[in-house]
Amino acid sequence: MADRHKSLSKPDVVVVGGGVVGLSTAWQLIKEGVEAVVVDPQPGAGASHAAAGMLAPIHEAYWGESHILGLNLAASQAWPVFAEQLGVDAVDYCRNGMLMAAYDVDDKALLDNLSDLHAQEGLPVERLRSRECRSREPLLAPGVRGGVYSPLDHHVNPRRVVAELLRRVPAVAIPAAEVSQNRVMLEDGQTMSCQQVVVAAGAWTGRLLGVPVRPVKGQILRLSGPEGLLRLPVRGVVRGSSVYAVPRSDGEIVVGATVEEQGFDTRVTAGGVYELLRAVLSLLPGLSEIDLVETWAGLRPGTPDNAPIIGTGADGIVYAAGHYRNGILTAPITAAAVAALVQGRRPPVDLSPFSPDRFAAAPTGRLPEAKPLSGVPG
Amino acid sequence: MADRHKSLSKPDVVVVGGGVVGLSTAWQLIKEGVEAVVVDPQPGAGASHAAAGMLAPIHEAYWGESHILGLNLAASQAWPVFAEQLGVDAVDYCRNGMLMAAYDVDDKALLDNLSDLHAQEGLPVERLRSRECRSREPLLAPGVRGGVYSPLDHHVNPRRVVAELLRRVPAVAIPAAEVSQNRVMLEDGQTMSCQQVVVAAGAWTGRLLGVPVRPVKGQILRLSGPEGLLRLPVRGVVRGSSVYAVPRSDGEIVVGATVEEQGFDTRVTAGGVYELLRAVLSLLPGLSEIDLVETWAGLRPGTPDNAPIIGTGADGIVYAAGHYRNGILTAPITAAAVAALVQGRRPPVDLSPFSPDRFAAAPTGRLPEAKPLSGVPG
Repeated sequence: MADRHKSLSKPDVVVVGGGVVGLSTAWQLIKEGVEAVVVDPQPGAGASHAAAGMLAPIHEAYWGESHILGLNLAASQAWPVFAEQLGVDAVDYCRNGMLMAAYDVDDKALLDNLSDLHAQEGLPVERLRSRECRSREPLLAPGVRGGVYSPLDHHVNPRRVVAELLRRVPAVAIPAAEVSQNRVMLEDGQTMSCQQVVVAAGAWTGRLLGVPVRPVKGQILRLSGPEGLLRLPVRGVVRGSSVYAVPRSDGEIVVGATVEEQGFDTRVTAGGVYELLRAVLSLLPGLSEIDLVETWAGLRPGTPDNAPIIGTGADGIVYAAGHYRNGILTAPITAAAVAALVQGRRPPVDLSPFSPDRFAAAPTGRLPEAKPLSGVPG
Repeated sequence: MADRHKSLSKPDVVVVGGGVVGLSTAWQLIKEGVEAVVVDPQPGAGASHAAAGMLAPIHEAYWGESHILGLNLAASQAWPVFAEQLGVDAVDYCRNGMLMAAYDVDDKALLDNLSDLHAQEGLPVERLRSRECRSREPLLAPGVRGGVYSPLDHHVNPRRVVAELLRRVPAVAIPAAEVSQNRVMLEDGQTMSCQQVVVAAGAWTGRLLGVPVRPVKGQILRLSGPEGLLRLPVRGVVRGSSVYAVPRSDGEIVVGATVEEQGFDTRVTAGGVYELLRAVLSLLPGLSEIDLVETWAGLRPGTPDNAPIIGTGADGIVYAAGHYRNGILTAPITAAAVAALVQGRRPPVDLSPFSPDRFAAAPTGRLPEAKPLSGVPG
């Protein structure tokens, strides 16, 4: 498959979708000598542009999702090399851990429940009392009831990751209209032929193909303050809602995110911004005085069981979609897995829980119900 | 003074400041045959760009400010002709009154106190019970304790007013560095000579000249929803804070405004936006679902006694500054007064309470204390 003399219009692989998953996949293929091109109306402008960039297998662990936890832990281990290749500073990759804090006693109960899960799974975390939380992150409100520090949860700037990937991967900025195993018809009428089509179209995957991937809207804010104001990424459980604040090295702080089932709606609403500010200012009142510089909304690709879809479908298409809240985290390992599949090698992780065909038994028009997140809402 | 053959570089009058007051003044002079030009680094980009456009003498009435109330009432009467000349639809001039609503019992007490003032001043208002408030404006929260409807308080779109004025008034987009009675030195080194300089530089007037005009920061939001969603401009007293929501005919709703003594700071802060959303969504919960389309901050020109500075100073300069919260409302009457002064006629209102020299007795470095607003904070 490594014939390097083909033109862009007939590459080995066409990856439909230019978010972090699609771009990482194309880049992995290119590094392995496979000619790959990405097709996307606006590469990097979707969920990857909205994402906060938490690489947090521990803080994204929920009861009953052991297979997702396993994938996320493996994904976390793939990140140091991935970040090194893109440039650790270039992508603002930061490994100083993450703090989850409980705002009131009910929130503390939710956190204790998650701590039981962490213990059961043998995850390396430190349980902290209120004062210990504030000693690690002095911006936390004095009333915080306790927390969990997770040294393995890292973070990165997804917009920079996408920018670096776009320097390394050829992209065609036209929407795809129809796809099959080895052909992509573009909306402008052109057809691209190749040996293998990979679909990594995020929330749009469900529109393009029959799989049950749906958009889950997230509104997000960007604040900007002095560098180092917030030391650590903080995720808070505040009156039953989840909120996070992720610092960048330049003083930007990303605050997110709402979880809304609204279809393909990316409006920023008064109520969404209010709920985010209410939660984050309860938890980190010192952020009140810093600038609010951006409001945004993106669409997470959700699936009925919250797990991604990675593998070859009955239609012969390779799927790399439905990464929901963990697209940034799992992009490198997804890329490695897809590159292996495309070339007939054994993937580096067990993909059987993520098969595209696992939803096939659902009767047409009655997809399995979305499963609520256990433990922490939002 | 009506020599129409002079060049722009030697007009009869140079107006320093291209906000709504300066532009209205220049336009009034031009209508009266006086050649006038405005000088401003960014015409229309200051407080006029941030303003909500309430033309509300009644709702801006406070105890102990009878002279301001008198000016504002006269100003209100000048608006219909002013709007007619600019185009009622072009500037979105709307005369359906305004509703002031109290959120809780303490807020009701503040409102009752203002109602006593309205009664004492003989102002035409209707006191409303909770259900009557909601019948006039169904979006109001059911818990609202009561209100006051004021048919004389109107509203307009200030950005459109400025745009219309800029089509009628010549403007030089260079900052003024120094001014005297008949000369303006620009920051690029050029000098403009004229017969009379008028200074209408808003919050920057205090920097340019010795008068105690200071910036009072206001953060403001623009929401956007279906046309007609909010029927009336609503001003609420919510847990002791004041908030307003002013609808435009195109579905935009302006929500304001913080009152902050922060110097020349126009940052939009997380805390400012949060407080505005908290207050307005308490009062009008139905706005939660509509789009938040803009956050902004402007600088009101405040004076020690909250009254504007209109008149000829000991330095021979004509002042039209310090309009604080009422620049849009009082622009037309200020323009008429200044045009009269410049041409040696008697102004249409008594300007003695607004003399530029009334602060002269204050010892240098110890200006009179800013007077807190009575009745309604914010």
